[in-house]
Amino acid sequence: MQIYGDLMSGNCLKVRYVADRLGLPYTWVPVDILRGETRTPEYLARFPMGQVPGVAFPDGRCLAQSNAIIRSLARGSALLPEDPWVQAEIDQWLFWEQYSHEPTIAVCRFHMRYKGEPAETRDPKKVAGGEAALDLMERRLVAADWFAGQTFTIADIALFAYTQFADEGGFSLAARPAVRSWLGRCIQALGLPREPSPAALA
Amino acid sequence: MQIYGDLMSGNCLKVRYVADRLGLPYTWVPVDILRGETRTPEYLARFPMGQVPGVAFPDGRCLAQSNAIIRSLARGSALLPEDPWVQAEIDQWLFWEQYSHEPTIAVCRFHMRYKGEPAETRDPKKVAGGEAALDLMERRLVAADWFAGQTFTIADIALFAYTQFADEGGFSLAARPAVRSWLGRCIQALGLPREPSPAALA
Repeated sequence: MQIYGDLMSGNCLKVRYVADRLGLPYTWVPVDILRGETRTPEYLARFPMGQVPGVAFPDGRCLAQSNAIIRSLARGSALLPEDPWVQAEIDQWLFWEQYSHEPTIAVCRFHMRYKGEPAETRDPKKVAGGEAALDLMERRLVAADWFAGQTFTIADIALFAYTQFADEGGFSLAARPAVRSWLGRCIQALGLPREPSPAALA
Repeated sequence: MQIYGDLMSGNCLKVRYVADRLGLPYTWVPVDILRGETRTPEYLARFPMGQVPGVAFPDGRCLAQSNAIIRSLARGSALLPEDPWVQAEIDQWLFWEQYSHEPTIAVCRFHMRYKGEPAETRDPKKVAGGEAALDLMERRLVAADWFAGQTFTIADIALFAYTQFADEGGFSLAARPAVRSWLGRCIQALGLPREPSPAALA
Protein backbone atom coordinates (compact mmCIF):
# COMPACT_ATOMS: atom_id res chain seq x y z
CA MET A 1 0.00 0.00 0.00
CA GLN A 2 0.91 3.65 -0.29
CA ILE A 3 0.80 5.92 2.75
CA TYR A 4 0.39 9.58 1.86
CA GLY A 5 1.73 11.62 4.70
CA ASP A 6 3.99 14.16 6.33
CA LEU A 7 6.56 12.77 8.76
CA MET A 8 6.21 15.79 11.02
CA SER A 9 2.51 15.04 11.49
CA GLY A 10 1.56 12.86 14.44
CA ASN A 11 -1.58 11.78 12.61
CA CYS A 12 0.59 10.43 9.79
CA LEU A 13 3.10 8.85 12.15
CA LYS A 14 0.29 6.79 13.70
CA VAL A 15 -0.15 4.96 10.40
CA ARG A 16 3.56 4.42 10.03
CA TYR A 17 3.87 3.10 13.58
CA VAL A 18 1.07 0.58 13.05
CA ALA A 19 2.36 -0.55 9.67
CA ASP A 20 5.90 -0.96 11.02
CA ARG A 21 4.76 -2.75 14.14
CA LEU A 22 2.66 -5.20 12.10
CA GLY A 23 5.29 -5.62 9.38
CA LEU A 24 2.97 -4.37 6.64
CA PRO A 25 4.86 -3.36 3.50
CA TYR A 26 4.24 0.17 2.26
CA THR A 27 5.58 3.03 0.22
CA TRP A 28 5.65 6.40 1.93
CA VAL A 29 4.47 9.20 -0.37
CA PRO A 30 5.51 12.57 1.08
CA VAL A 31 2.79 15.22 1.05
CA ASP A 32 3.58 18.84 1.90
CA ILE A 33 0.53 20.36 3.56
CA LEU A 34 1.95 23.87 3.66
CA ARG A 35 2.50 23.80 -0.11
CA GLY A 36 -1.14 22.88 -0.68
CA GLU A 37 -0.45 19.33 -1.79
CA THR A 38 -3.60 18.05 -0.05
CA ARG A 39 -5.65 20.44 -2.20
CA THR A 40 -4.62 19.35 -5.68
CA PRO A 41 -7.25 17.73 -7.94
CA GLU A 42 -5.20 14.52 -7.98
CA TYR A 43 -5.05 14.32 -4.19
CA LEU A 44 -8.72 15.19 -3.74
CA ALA A 45 -9.70 12.53 -6.29
CA ARG A 46 -8.17 9.95 -3.96
CA PHE A 47 -8.95 11.64 -0.66
CA PRO A 48 -11.95 13.97 -0.93
CA MET A 49 -11.55 15.07 2.70
CA GLY A 50 -8.30 16.78 1.67
CA GLN A 51 -6.23 15.75 4.67
CA VAL A 52 -3.24 13.59 5.53
CA PRO A 53 -2.73 10.77 6.16
CA GLY A 54 -4.36 8.79 3.40
CA VAL A 55 -3.78 5.20 2.42
CA ALA A 56 -4.15 3.81 -1.12
CA PHE A 57 -4.38 0.04 -1.38
CA PRO A 58 -3.09 -1.93 -4.39
CA ASP A 59 -6.66 -2.51 -5.65
CA GLY A 60 -7.25 1.24 -5.80
CA ARG A 61 -9.36 1.64 -2.68
CA CYS A 62 -8.46 4.68 -0.60
CA LEU A 63 -9.01 5.38 3.08
CA ALA A 64 -8.57 8.58 5.06
CA GLN A 65 -8.68 9.65 8.73
CA SER A 66 -5.73 8.48 10.79
CA ASN A 67 -7.71 6.62 13.43
CA ALA A 68 -9.95 4.91 10.88
CA ILE A 69 -6.83 3.79 9.03
CA ILE A 70 -5.04 2.37 12.05
CA ARG A 71 -8.22 0.67 13.24
CA SER A 72 -8.53 -0.98 9.83
CA LEU A 73 -4.87 -2.00 9.59
CA ALA A 74 -4.82 -3.35 13.16
CA ARG A 75 -7.85 -5.61 12.67
CA GLY A 76 -7.08 -9.12 13.83
CA SER A 77 -3.83 -8.12 15.54
CA ALA A 78 -2.93 -7.70 19.20
CA LEU A 79 -3.12 -3.93 18.68
CA LEU A 80 -6.92 -4.28 18.47
CA PRO A 81 -7.98 -7.07 20.82
CA GLU A 82 -11.12 -9.00 19.88
CA ASP A 83 -12.90 -8.33 23.17
CA PRO A 84 -15.88 -6.04 22.39
CA TRP A 85 -15.54 -4.03 25.60
CA VAL A 86 -11.84 -3.40 25.03
CA GLN A 87 -12.68 -2.29 21.49
CA ALA A 88 -15.32 0.08 22.89
CA GLU A 89 -12.76 1.55 25.27
CA ILE A 90 -10.27 1.89 22.43
CA ASP A 91 -12.86 3.70 20.32
CA GLN A 92 -13.68 6.00 23.21
CA TRP A 93 -10.05 7.10 23.43
CA LEU A 94 -9.65 7.32 19.64
CA PHE A 95 -12.60 9.70 19.37
CA TRP A 96 -11.47 11.68 22.39
CA GLU A 97 -8.02 11.98 20.85
CA GLN A 98 -9.41 13.50 17.67
CA TYR A 99 -11.87 15.78 19.47
CA SER A 100 -10.02 16.96 22.56
CA HIS A 101 -6.31 16.14 22.22
CA GLU A 102 -5.28 16.68 18.60
CA PRO A 103 -7.25 19.94 18.12
CA THR A 104 -5.52 21.42 21.14
CA ILE A 105 -2.03 19.95 21.50
CA ALA A 106 -1.32 19.37 17.81
CA VAL A 107 -2.79 22.72 16.86
CA CYS A 108 -0.55 24.51 19.38
CA ARG A 109 2.40 22.57 18.03
CA PHE A 110 1.45 23.57 14.47
CA HIS A 111 1.36 27.19 15.59
CA MET A 112 4.83 26.98 17.09
CA ARG A 113 6.64 24.36 15.03
CA TYR A 114 5.21 24.89 11.53
CA LYS A 115 4.52 28.61 11.74
CA GLY A 116 7.38 29.49 14.05
CA GLU A 117 5.22 31.55 16.40
CA PRO A 118 6.10 31.92 20.11
CA ALA A 119 4.26 30.00 22.82
CA GLU A 120 2.80 33.21 24.22
CA THR A 121 0.72 33.72 21.06
CA ARG A 122 -1.06 30.37 21.25
CA ASP A 123 -4.86 30.43 21.40
CA PRO A 124 -5.67 30.44 25.17
CA LYS A 125 -8.61 28.08 24.65
CA LYS A 126 -6.35 25.60 22.88
CA VAL A 127 -3.79 25.90 25.65
CA ALA A 128 -6.41 25.25 28.35
CA GLY A 129 -7.81 22.34 26.36
CA GLY A 130 -4.39 20.82 25.89
CA GLU A 131 -3.51 21.14 29.57
CA ALA A 132 -6.83 19.51 30.50
CA ALA A 133 -6.22 16.71 28.02
CA LEU A 134 -2.79 15.98 29.48
CA ASP A 135 -4.24 16.08 33.00
CA LEU A 136 -6.88 13.52 32.04
CA MET A 137 -4.18 11.29 30.55
CA GLU A 138 -2.15 11.60 33.75
CA ARG A 139 -5.13 10.54 35.89
CA ARG A 140 -5.76 7.53 33.66
CA LEU A 141 -2.11 6.50 33.65
CA VAL A 142 -1.74 6.73 37.40
CA ALA A 143 -4.33 3.96 37.56
CA ALA A 144 -3.40 1.86 34.50
CA ASP A 145 -0.42 1.08 32.30
CA TRP A 146 -2.35 1.49 29.04
CA PHE A 147 -5.42 3.36 27.87
CA ALA A 148 -7.68 0.43 27.01
CA GLY A 149 -7.67 -3.06 28.45
CA GLN A 150 -4.41 -4.41 29.88
CA THR A 151 -2.21 -4.20 26.81
CA PHE A 152 -0.62 -1.83 24.32
CA THR A 153 -3.22 -1.02 21.64
CA ILE A 154 -3.96 1.49 18.90
CA ALA A 155 -5.46 3.74 21.61
CA ASP A 156 -1.94 4.16 22.98
CA ILE A 157 -0.49 4.67 19.51
CA ALA A 158 -3.07 7.35 18.67
CA LEU A 159 -2.37 9.22 21.90
CA PHE A 160 1.39 8.73 21.73
CA ALA A 161 1.58 10.37 18.31
CA TYR A 162 1.21 13.96 19.50
CA THR A 163 1.88 13.54 23.22
CA GLN A 164 5.51 12.76 22.39
CA PHE A 165 5.73 16.26 20.85
CA ALA A 166 3.76 18.06 23.58
CA ASP A 167 6.76 20.27 24.39
CA GLU A 168 6.84 21.50 20.79
CA GLY A 169 3.37 22.88 21.42
CA GLY A 170 4.46 24.59 24.61
CA PHE A 171 3.18 21.93 27.02
CA SER A 172 5.29 20.54 29.85
CA LEU A 173 5.17 16.98 31.11
CA ALA A 174 7.28 17.84 34.15
CA ALA A 175 4.36 17.46 36.56
CA ARG A 176 2.95 14.45 34.72
CA PRO A 177 5.20 11.51 35.66
CA ALA A 178 2.66 8.85 34.68
CA VAL A 179 2.45 10.27 31.15
CA ARG A 180 6.25 10.32 30.93
CA SER A 181 6.51 6.69 32.05
CA TRP A 182 3.84 5.68 29.54
CA LEU A 183 5.69 7.50 26.73
CA GLY A 184 8.70 5.35 27.57
CA ARG A 185 6.60 2.17 27.46
CA CYS A 186 5.17 3.20 24.09
CA ILE A 187 8.64 3.84 22.68
CA GLN A 188 9.67 0.38 23.83
CA ALA A 189 6.51 -1.28 22.47
CA LEU A 190 6.97 0.45 19.11
CA GLY A 191 10.65 -0.41 18.99
CA LEU A 192 11.50 3.21 18.27
CA PRO A 193 15.21 3.95 18.25
CA ARG A 194 15.02 7.37 19.80
CA GLU A 195 13.87 8.87 23.06
CA PRO A 196 11.27 11.64 22.99
CA SER A 197 12.78 15.09 22.85
CA PRO A 198 14.55 16.01 26.11
CA ALA A 199 12.25 19.00 26.58
CA ALA A 200 9.24 16.71 26.74
CA LEU A 201 10.80 14.89 29.65
CA ALA A 202 12.09 17.99 31.41
CA MET B 1 -28.76 1.02 30.47
CA GLN B 2 -28.81 4.69 31.33
CA ILE B 3 -28.10 7.31 28.69
CA TYR B 4 -26.87 10.59 30.14
CA GLY B 5 -27.63 13.30 27.67
CA ASP B 6 -29.21 16.52 26.50
CA LEU B 7 -31.99 16.16 23.93
CA MET B 8 -30.89 19.33 22.15
CA SER B 9 -27.45 17.83 21.51
CA GLY B 10 -27.00 15.98 18.24
CA ASN B 11 -24.24 13.92 19.83
CA CYS B 12 -26.72 12.69 22.44
CA LEU B 13 -29.48 12.12 19.90
CA LYS B 14 -27.19 9.73 18.00
CA VAL B 15 -27.26 7.36 20.97
CA ARG B 16 -31.01 7.64 21.33
CA TYR B 17 -31.55 7.01 17.62
CA VAL B 18 -29.43 3.85 17.69
CA ALA B 19 -31.02 2.54 20.88
CA ASP B 20 -34.52 3.20 19.55
CA ARG B 21 -33.76 1.69 16.17
CA LEU B 22 -32.35 -1.46 17.76
CA GLY B 23 -35.05 -1.67 20.42
CA LEU B 24 -32.56 -1.44 23.28
CA PRO B 25 -34.20 -0.53 26.59
CA TYR B 26 -32.80 2.51 28.35
CA THR B 27 -33.48 5.26 30.83
CA TRP B 28 -32.73 8.77 29.66
CA VAL B 29 -30.96 10.83 32.33
CA PRO B 30 -31.15 14.54 31.46
CA VAL B 31 -27.88 16.44 31.84
CA ASP B 32 -27.81 20.23 31.57
CA ILE B 33 -24.44 21.23 30.11
CA LEU B 34 -25.01 24.95 30.59
CA ARG B 35 -25.61 24.41 34.30
CA GLY B 36 -22.30 22.60 34.65
CA GLU B 37 -23.83 19.19 35.23
CA THR B 38 -21.04 17.49 33.26
CA ARG B 39 -18.51 18.97 35.70
CA THR B 40 -19.83 17.62 39.00
CA PRO B 41 -17.69 15.11 40.93
CA GLU B 42 -20.46 12.50 40.50
CA TYR B 43 -20.57 12.93 36.74
CA LEU B 44 -16.79 12.98 36.36
CA ALA B 45 -16.52 9.81 38.44
CA ARG B 46 -18.58 8.04 35.78
CA PHE B 47 -17.35 9.98 32.77
CA PRO B 48 -13.89 11.49 33.33
CA MET B 49 -13.96 13.19 29.91
CA GLY B 50 -16.73 15.43 31.26
CA GLN B 51 -18.93 15.41 28.18
CA VAL B 52 -22.32 14.16 27.07
CA PRO B 53 -23.46 11.68 26.00
CA GLY B 54 -22.40 8.96 28.38
CA VAL B 55 -23.82 5.50 28.81
CA ALA B 56 -23.86 3.53 32.08
CA PHE B 57 -24.53 -0.19 31.75
CA PRO B 58 -26.28 -2.26 34.44
CA ASP B 59 -22.97 -3.85 35.51
CA GLY B 60 -21.53 -0.41 36.25
CA ARG B 61 -19.32 -0.01 33.20
CA CYS B 62 -19.46 3.43 31.63
CA LEU B 63 -18.69 4.54 28.10
CA ALA B 64 -18.34 8.04 26.64
CA GLN B 65 -17.90 9.59 23.19
CA SER B 66 -21.00 9.48 21.02
CA ASN B 67 -19.45 7.66 18.09
CA ALA B 68 -17.74 5.10 20.30
CA ILE B 69 -21.07 4.46 22.03
CA ILE B 70 -23.09 3.98 18.85
CA ARG B 71 -20.37 1.80 17.35
CA SER B 72 -20.51 -0.38 20.45
CA LEU B 73 -24.32 -0.56 20.59
CA ALA B 74 -24.63 -1.28 16.86
CA ARG B 75 -22.22 -4.22 16.93
CA GLY B 76 -23.77 -7.25 15.25
CA SER B 77 -26.67 -5.26 13.79
CA ALA B 78 -27.37 -4.06 10.26
CA LEU B 79 -26.31 -0.58 11.36
CA LEU B 80 -22.69 -1.83 11.44
CA PRO B 81 -22.29 -4.40 8.64
CA GLU B 82 -19.70 -7.14 9.22
CA ASP B 83 -17.75 -6.38 6.04
CA PRO B 84 -14.34 -5.01 7.12
CA TRP B 85 -14.13 -2.51 4.27
CA VAL B 86 -17.60 -1.12 4.99
CA GLN B 87 -16.58 -0.81 8.65
CA ALA B 88 -13.43 1.06 7.59
CA GLU B 89 -15.54 3.45 5.50
CA ILE B 90 -17.92 3.91 8.42
CA ASP B 91 -15.03 4.71 10.74
CA GLN B 92 -13.63 7.17 8.22
CA TRP B 93 -16.90 9.11 8.24
CA LEU B 94 -17.31 8.84 12.03
CA PHE B 95 -13.90 10.38 12.63
CA TRP B 96 -14.47 13.02 9.95
CA GLU B 97 -17.78 13.88 11.59
CA GLN B 98 -16.13 14.51 14.93
CA TYR B 99 -13.18 16.41 13.47
CA SER B 100 -14.63 18.47 10.63
CA HIS B 101 -18.43 18.48 10.90
CA GLU B 102 -19.38 18.68 14.58
CA PRO B 103 -16.71 21.27 15.54
CA THR B 104 -17.98 23.57 12.81
CA ILE B 105 -21.72 23.05 12.29
CA ALA B 106 -22.62 22.07 15.85
CA VAL B 107 -20.42 24.79 17.29
CA CYS B 108 -22.13 27.44 15.12
CA ARG B 109 -25.48 26.04 16.22
CA PHE B 110 -24.40 26.23 19.85
CA HIS B 111 -23.44 29.86 19.31
CA MET B 112 -26.84 30.70 17.86
CA ARG B 113 -29.24 28.28 19.52
CA TYR B 114 -27.80 27.90 23.03
CA LYS B 115 -26.25 31.34 23.39
CA GLY B 116 -28.79 33.22 21.29
CA GLU B 117 -26.16 35.06 19.27
CA PRO B 118 -26.87 36.21 15.68
CA ALA B 119 -25.47 34.36 12.65
CA GLU B 120 -23.25 37.30 11.75
CA THR B 121 -21.19 36.83 14.91
CA ARG B 122 -20.24 33.22 14.19
CA ASP B 123 -16.51 32.41 13.96
CA PRO B 124 -15.66 32.83 10.23
CA LYS B 125 -13.37 29.79 10.31
CA LYS B 126 -16.17 27.66 11.73
CA VAL B 127 -18.55 28.98 9.08
CA ALA B 128 -16.11 28.17 6.28
CA GLY B 129 -15.45 24.74 7.75
CA GLY B 130 -19.15 24.00 8.05
CA GLU B 131 -19.86 25.09 4.48
CA ALA B 132 -16.99 22.90 3.25
CA ALA B 133 -18.29 19.95 5.28
CA LEU B 134 -21.78 20.27 3.78
CA ASP B 135 -20.27 20.58 0.30
CA LEU B 136 -18.32 17.37 0.80
CA MET B 137 -21.49 15.63 1.96
CA GLU B 138 -23.34 16.88 -1.10
CA ARG B 139 -20.65 15.52 -3.42
CA ARG B 140 -20.77 12.13 -1.71
CA LEU B 141 -24.57 11.98 -1.79
CA VAL B 142 -24.79 12.89 -5.46
CA ALA B 143 -22.92 9.65 -6.09
CA ALA B 144 -24.39 7.38 -3.40
CA ASP B 145 -27.51 6.98 -1.27
CA TRP B 146 -25.60 6.42 1.97
CA PHE B 147 -22.19 7.30 3.37
CA ALA B 148 -20.70 3.83 3.71
CA GLY B 149 -21.50 0.71 1.73
CA GLN B 150 -24.95 0.41 0.18
CA THR B 151 -27.10 0.64 3.29
CA PHE B 152 -28.13 2.89 6.15
CA THR B 153 -25.47 2.65 8.87
CA ILE B 154 -24.21 4.45 11.95
CA ALA B 155 -22.19 6.68 9.60
CA ASP B 156 -25.49 8.12 8.38
CA ILE B 157 -26.84 8.42 11.92
CA ALA B 158 -23.72 10.24 13.10
CA LEU B 159 -23.89 12.72 10.24
CA PHE B 160 -27.68 13.09 10.38
CA ALA B 161 -27.54 14.18 14.03
CA TYR B 162 -26.33 17.73 13.41
CA THR B 163 -27.00 18.07 9.68
CA GLN B 164 -30.72 18.04 10.43
CA PHE B 165 -30.14 21.20 12.51
CA ALA B 166 -27.76 22.90 10.04
CA ASP B 167 -30.15 25.84 9.64
CA GLU B 168 -30.00 26.47 13.40
CA GLY B 169 -26.29 27.10 12.92
CA GLY B 170 -26.90 29.49 10.06
CA PHE B 171 -26.22 27.00 7.24
CA SER B 172 -28.54 26.59 4.27
CA LEU B 173 -29.23 23.36 2.47
CA ALA B 174 -31.03 25.16 -0.37
CA ALA B 175 -28.23 24.47 -2.86
CA ARG B 176 -27.63 20.97 -1.53
CA PRO B 177 -30.46 18.83 -2.86
CA ALA B 178 -28.65 15.53 -2.37
CA VAL B 179 -28.18 16.28 1.34
CA ARG B 180 -31.86 17.19 1.62
CA SER B 181 -32.95 13.93 -0.04
CA TRP B 182 -30.63 11.96 2.24
CA LEU B 183 -32.05 13.69 5.33
CA GLY B 184 -35.47 12.46 4.22
CA ARG B 185 -34.16 8.92 3.80
CA CYS B 186 -32.59 9.04 7.27
CA ILE B 187 -35.86 10.24 8.83
CA GLN B 188 -37.64 7.33 7.17
CA ALA B 189 -34.97 4.82 8.20
CA LEU B 190 -35.08 6.04 11.79
CA GLY B 191 -38.87 6.06 11.83
CA LEU B 192 -38.86 9.62 13.13
CA PRO B 193 -42.28 11.19 13.33
CA ARG B 194 -41.29 14.67 12.33
CA GLU B 195 -39.75 16.31 9.32
CA PRO B 196 -36.61 18.39 9.76
CA SER B 197 -37.27 22.05 10.42
CA PRO B 198 -38.69 23.84 7.35
CA ALA B 199 -35.74 26.23 7.32
CA ALA B 200 -33.36 23.34 6.80
CA LEU B 201 -35.21 22.36 3.67
CA ALA B 202 -35.73 25.88 2.36
